Amino acid sequence: MEFVKGGVCAPAGFKAGGIYAGFRNNPAKKDLAMIVSDRKASAAGVYTQNKVKGAPIEVTRRHIEDGYASALICNSGNANTCAPNGVSVAERTCELAASALGLDASDIAVCSTGVIGQELDLAPFEAGIPVLAGTLSYDGSSEAAAAIMTTDTVMKETAVSFDIEGTRCTIGGISKGSGMINPNMATMLGFITTDVNISPQMLQKALSADIVTSFNQICVDGDTSTNDTVIILANGMAQNDEITSEGEAYHTFCEALSAVTTYLAKKMAADGEGATKLIECTVKGAPDDETARKIAKSVISSNLLKAAIFGSDANWGRVLCAIGYTDAVFTADSIDVEMKSAKGSVRVCEGSRHREYSEDEASEILKASGILIDVNMNQGTGCGTAWGCDLTYDYVKINGDYRS
Amino acid sequence: MEFVKGGVCAPAGFKAGGIYAGFRNNPAKKDLAMIVSDRKASAAGVYTQNKVKGAPIEVTRRHIEDGYASALICNSGNANTCAPNGVSVAERTCELAASALGLDASDIAVCSTGVIGQELDLAPFEAGIPVLAGTLSYDGSSEAAAAIMTTDTVMKETAVSFDIEGTRCTIGGISKGSGMINPNMATMLGFITTDVNISPQMLQKALSADIVTSFNQICVDGDTSTNDTVIILANGMAQNDEITSEGEAYHTFCEALSAVTTYLAKKMAADGEGATKLIECTVKGAPDDETARKIAKSVISSNLLKAAIFGSDANWGRVLCAIGYTDAVFTADSIDVEMKSAKGSVRVCEGSRHREYSEDEASEILKASGILIDVNMNQGTGCGTAWGCDLTYDYVKINGDYRS
Repeated sequence: MEFVKGGVCAPAGFKAGGIYAGFRNNPAKKDLAMIVSDRKASAAGVYTQNKVKGAPIEVTRRHIEDGYASALICNSGNANTCAPNGVSVAERTCELAASALGLDASDIAVCSTGVIGQELDLAPFEAGIPVLAGTLSYDGSSEAAAAIMTTDTVMKETAVSFDIEGTRCTIGGISKGSGMINPNMATMLGFITTDVNISPQMLQKALSADIVTSFNQICVDGDTSTNDTVIILANGMAQNDEITSEGEAYHTFCEALSAVTTYLAKKMAADGEGATKLIECTVKGAPDDETARKIAKSVISSNLLKAAIFGSDANWGRVLCAIGYTDAVFTADSIDVEMKSAKGSVRVCEGSRHREYSEDEASEILKASGILIDVNMNQGTGCGTAWGCDLTYDYVKINGDYRS
Repeated sequence: MEFVKGGVCAPAGFKAGGIYAGFRNNPAKKDLAMIVSDRKASAAGVYTQNKVKGAPIEVTRRHIEDGYASALICNSGNANTCAPNGVSVAERTCELAASALGLDASDIAVCSTGVIGQELDLAPFEAGIPVLAGTLSYDGSSEAAAAIMTTDTVMKETAVSFDIEGTRCTIGGISKGSGMINPNMATMLGFITTDVNISPQMLQKALSADIVTSFNQICVDGDTSTNDTVIILANGMAQNDEITSEGEAYHTFCEALSAVTTYLAKKMAADGEGATKLIECTVKGAPDDETARKIAKSVISSNLLKAAIFGSDANWGRVLCAIGYTDAVFTADSIDVEMKSAKGSVRVCEGSRHREYSEDEASEILKASGILIDVNMNQGTGCGTAWGCDLTYDYVKINGDYRS
């Protein structure tokens, strides 16, 4: 498996593009993206668990219910959530895209991200979709990645190539998200394409299993969006034998999928609103993997720990405190904690007790932009990882002054 | 029922005091508090749910297991958590207090708040306890309230007087807590005294029921402390007939207890680390009270909403988003939201949809220091309230730069 260029256009048979269509006031920021497969693709999706859901989620869920889709359209600047006529606007968006692309509306997935509670104007879709359809290209991934950004400061795109039974295959992805959600202008979106030949059922199974260790393990502020969506399209153009059950080919596919989603997840955590540092927490020695993942996520979600890391303070008491209030079953009296970065490593806690170390040295280590918090629960074989970011003045500024 | 002065010394037969004993480096800040009842009192306690627990919790729990206690001792500056010899230090503290007061060590409750992971030195107890015991007085509540403060900026103390079957009774309380916990220097502590004559069983029942709507409904940063403790002592000196079952006297007692705990809870939320505003969220029309409380707490716990309130931004999408990810069963399509303060009120959302309002007017209303977010779920009769505070630059500063 190797990382390759091209994002969602790296797999065979996918065009993409992005333009400024007028959802925002600033023409310098693209706000409409499209990804189109040359062939109808197996499709799968996962969606926010928030009870307040964006209207596009209802429409997308219905359109890929049969396991297939051909294209995906996404605007930024307005979330089409708690908004008048939400579902009919989302339906109409798919019809406009279908008509421009010569496809069925029921084969189009639709996503929106941006302000909640305001009616999503159809005019920018009506004017923009035909233009966008004309600019789609086999190297347009970055245009689409740029168009779905909101408060993101860097574009998130990646792709990997790998072999399934001797056939070269590729998976690509783009994503956005800068608060784990800021319901006014964020939302976590992930769009993944692949030329692997795989049945819709196995594709959904692979995606649903994958997000447990990738997108679900990142947290910027604990706020779950109304619009979070991950969609994967698999058009089969790599021409491997169709994957229809678990086996070596399926596992190879899952491994490559994990490389793409984990890369995108880490990119989103590192680009958390106001963040200056990526925090990775790895937990081993837990009773089981699920418990390890919960503990890791609890640690990287703690405001107090996030603020301490911002201040380069090796405040391991906050790590133990966050482990302790994790909603899972384990003992908390034999925990080891080590903090690491490119600048070195320091063991700060052993057997849930303080271990002598130099605060100055620890602070130097925590001044790096990538911080690893290594936890050993010493009670089993469960492992898990989660990614977050520090809590900074800029997070408060972005979210306090946002709409002004 | 009326609010009266005197804090934990307002009820008959309680002395209190606080001194600087040397747990901290700054002699201007008191760090050792004591509350002593003239008679052995019914005692009840509630403790943190964190799996990492301070050593004093184990000792206090054991000492009041028989339903009685006579005194309470508490130091600030060191939490005696994840610390060497924690339990024996806590035991020894009780022995020192018992010897100075002429009591049994098993009738003393002990609490600690402060830094995690460092051995709690016995020397300040050895030198300080006899001195403190000599300064206890029937108007020493404020001394004790000051000695338990950490990052708190204001002292929290209150008392109410009320009649039970014609007998004048009083409940007093002090508390501290400025992060719902900052494990390095915070912890929520509440110490309540009363001269009501009530059995240990009914006292525990009243306290356990009360915290569900008071202390458990506040949140500063979502981090649950390792040392959170609420202790109540009831010495019976009001000489009412002993309360041994639910009935009018019990309910009168519960009502007065709620006035004290709710007052202290709101004070703690308003004094949250870095806070400039108290946020109260009331939820009505929920399927049941528990769901209403969960929804209210989810709203006041949202980092995004907290930052918006700091910025005086009537960002109701964040209210709906936080309601939506509450872990409870309800529908989210008929929610009304109104934002209020001493400066006026504005209805921002009706039936889960945007309602036209002036952003300028709303912003003016949100510039007040007390903000009420009034939610109607329109689907039942459940009510609940929660209290929090805004998320500010100073929260990040306090918790990022804390130990430096």
